[in-house]
Amino acid sequence: MQKPSLPKGTRDFGPLQMARRNFILDTIKDTFQLFGYNQIETPAMENLSTLTGKYGDEGDQLLFKILNSGDFLKNVGPEDLQNGANATLSKVSEKGLRYDLTVPFARFVVMNRNELTFPFKRFQIQPVWRADRPQKGRYREFYQCDADVVGTDSLVCEAEIVLMIRRVFSKLNIADYDIKINNRKILTGISEVIGEAGKEGPLCVAIDKLDKIGWEKVQEELAQRDFQNESIQKLSPLINFTGGVQEKLDFLKNFLASSEVGLQGVEELKDTFGILQAMGEDLSHVELDMVLARGLSYYTGAIFEVKVNHVSIGSVSGGGRYDNLTGVFGMDGVSGVGFSFGVDRIYDVMEELNIFPQSTAQGTQVLLTHFDQKGYRYALSILTRLRSAGIVSEIYPDQAKMKKQLDYASKNQIQFAAICGDQEIESQTIALKNLETGVQENLGVEDAIKTVLEFIPQKG
Amino acid sequence: MQKPSLPKGTRDFGPLQMARRNFILDTIKDTFQLFGYNQIETPAMENLSTLTGKYGDEGDQLLFKILNSGDFLKNVGPEDLQNGANATLSKVSEKGLRYDLTVPFARFVVMNRNELTFPFKRFQIQPVWRADRPQKGRYREFYQCDADVVGTDSLVCEAEIVLMIRRVFSKLNIADYDIKINNRKILTGISEVIGEAGKEGPLCVAIDKLDKIGWEKVQEELAQRDFQNESIQKLSPLINFTGGVQEKLDFLKNFLASSEVGLQGVEELKDTFGILQAMGEDLSHVELDMVLARGLSYYTGAIFEVKVNHVSIGSVSGGGRYDNLTGVFGMDGVSGVGFSFGVDRIYDVMEELNIFPQSTAQGTQVLLTHFDQKGYRYALSILTRLRSAGIVSEIYPDQAKMKKQLDYASKNQIQFAAICGDQEIESQTIALKNLETGVQENLGVEDAIKTVLEFIPQKG
Repeated sequence: MQKPSLPKGTRDFGPLQMARRNFILDTIKDTFQLFGYNQIETPAMENLSTLTGKYGDEGDQLLFKILNSGDFLKNVGPEDLQNGANATLSKVSEKGLRYDLTVPFARFVVMNRNELTFPFKRFQIQPVWRADRPQKGRYREFYQCDADVVGTDSLVCEAEIVLMIRRVFSKLNIADYDIKINNRKILTGISEVIGEAGKEGPLCVAIDKLDKIGWEKVQEELAQRDFQNESIQKLSPLINFTGGVQEKLDFLKNFLASSEVGLQGVEELKDTFGILQAMGEDLSHVELDMVLARGLSYYTGAIFEVKVNHVSIGSVSGGGRYDNLTGVFGMDGVSGVGFSFGVDRIYDVMEELNIFPQSTAQGTQVLLTHFDQKGYRYALSILTRLRSAGIVSEIYPDQAKMKKQLDYASKNQIQFAAICGDQEIESQTIALKNLETGVQENLGVEDAIKTVLEFIPQKG
Repeated sequence: MQKPSLPKGTRDFGPLQMARRNFILDTIKDTFQLFGYNQIETPAMENLSTLTGKYGDEGDQLLFKILNSGDFLKNVGPEDLQNGANATLSKVSEKGLRYDLTVPFARFVVMNRNELTFPFKRFQIQPVWRADRPQKGRYREFYQCDADVVGTDSLVCEAEIVLMIRRVFSKLNIADYDIKINNRKILTGISEVIGEAGKEGPLCVAIDKLDKIGWEKVQEELAQRDFQNESIQKLSPLINFTGGVQEKLDFLKNFLASSEVGLQGVEELKDTFGILQAMGEDLSHVELDMVLARGLSYYTGAIFEVKVNHVSIGSVSGGGRYDNLTGVFGMDGVSGVGFSFGVDRIYDVMEELNIFPQSTAQGTQVLLTHFDQKGYRYALSILTRLRSAGIVSEIYPDQAKMKKQLDYASKNQIQFAAICGDQEIESQTIALKNLETGVQENLGVEDAIKTVLEFIPQKG
């Protein structure tokens, strides 16, 4: 008999994990909806022609491919065995698993361009799959939660991203975090004014390591990447600058004075903050990070990253503005802005901070218990009344010792046991025992319902 | 430039479809939870060793297999090209996509046997994949919603399945349906008393066609399947019997008098109905179908099927009791009972009956509109107040003609437009226009909030 196992890098989620994950996902979903985003879903499988070439060579390797149905070898000949896997792939597979939610969304927009009303605000919460080497915190199947607006350049979208992040984190009770924000145009401007126009790519790769390796080492790396010494020195004031959002905006206005695109980036950030102000919102948790880059090739305007402080996993959310989401599918001019919550990371952060609310652990609230067939019948008569009152309840289904029934309740973290014995039947009551405090009361059913509802939020 | 497409048999779900699907899924989920079921999730990918051999030869062919990562050809030689796809499969693939939720659940129970408390009540709502030939109403990716209790023989589980089905259908406003119920032991008993012991399989296959081809043809088919003429004639009273649940139970008691197992099946049904009665519940929508079979080889006790009347798709839910869920993974003695809602079918039924509530179409409830930059700023100042009141609201993000803004609202089925012009700014009001009725009122923000909340359920 085989001993079953899970494919590496994949996970089951049991009841407690699911309750906690749902708490996070429902909070995110609720926030997206309040801001007018509409949910869509796309299939797990996409044609390989949709997926390949969108994530770089490394990404193509990490795609999970589906073997063609039926005789998958029918087009494969001996010469293919010589040519190798990459050359033969298209003969045995034409579908792959979704690698992210962005490319499927772009495909969706293109295929539904005539039915959609722009600007189109969508969110999408679905798993993605990557054949990455599994390691702690990195899985081969994980959920992404993306929200994007396409078909508008309005900076109100950027401002609302800040607001949505703050709402989600506030509801999740995560207090100590920074929303780092920057603009691709500022990065372009920086490379211009230091005399290395067009090299914002390598510039950002190097500067990204500032926290880890320090300014000395970053300078060495820049030199290795053919940055002139003079250019590197010009960066110094930027690297060493400290201050709040307003000071940084003032600094950048000076620093980027000779770069038109750079100043435009500063202006966009200023306008975004202005919109927040017009909405009666402050800049709490917002940090202007003048060298934040994140997937630079992709973004053309605002860039976001959210870091939770004092936890081992830092970055839990990110995104930015792009100019041409759907160009690769032949539909130009669709700009937009989007971002993504990393659910698995938020889960780990909340576990580390031990801030999951007690109530997320709760399934059943009342277990009806009984000593014999008569008590069982009596308990059955009460069950429907509890449920009609919105109380999640069940009856212990078998005839068993009371200890076993109470064990079942405590292992399942059920708060109340309602004991149905001869005395209770006679007086038409139940003995309601709070398994947390040990307090037991004899109550009529209506009073018992009131007591339970006072303790715990109702459902249904 | 490529024109993107979807793999055949798969679908995107846009905003309206998602809202409707969520209405169905949330109703089912809410009901499962009220009855004390806990949600779990398992990975999309399972090892092929977990999946193969569980669904028959045909099922094995319909599994979607994942190509091994990296050089998937490395173990394939010229001789494999001779041997063909089936023989070579294990050299290029070791994982497949989930085909149903039952086998992954069995694997989950076995792998977590030491952590779980039995009886274990779980529900699971996830997509499954089958390489079936796509046709109307049959997809290659579709959702299953399963609830199972394992580790108890108690018939309270069967009774609660009836109650959960009735609750879900009542909340979905599906009124005309039958919960057909039978018991495998009755089918065994029937084959015994007609003198064809052990042949309930072919018996049920033939009788299953009764509605379609009539009793004459069924008799022909039974004869072809080597049933004695005398046996077939003994079936006649059963086939021709009409009556309510109680009459059928009485009839079966007589008909199966010589079959111990048959009488046991009758007793189980009687007890199940007795439990419903003890719970203060009636037998509405319950129909005892003495020849209902459904996946016979699998079930050992109760068998359920739900049919909606007067619609093209009939069967929308089914399930039953099984004796040995996990035996195939080396863990014996885990009996249980489960059933499954077919979400796609329920969706189609509700669409055909045109009973989706209007409110499920609703995303954004209020769109703030504006004529110029000044109005835009004013609208921004109101947006947060609307959202804080739980009203799903957005601002039209760009400067655009009022007609375009109102078009956006009506295409997105937004009920209210809040127009922010010079007059409104001066009087600190908004012109709240109900886009359904055309009625427009000038209101202070607090009054506008009240008006909107009276019309539509709040969120957030």
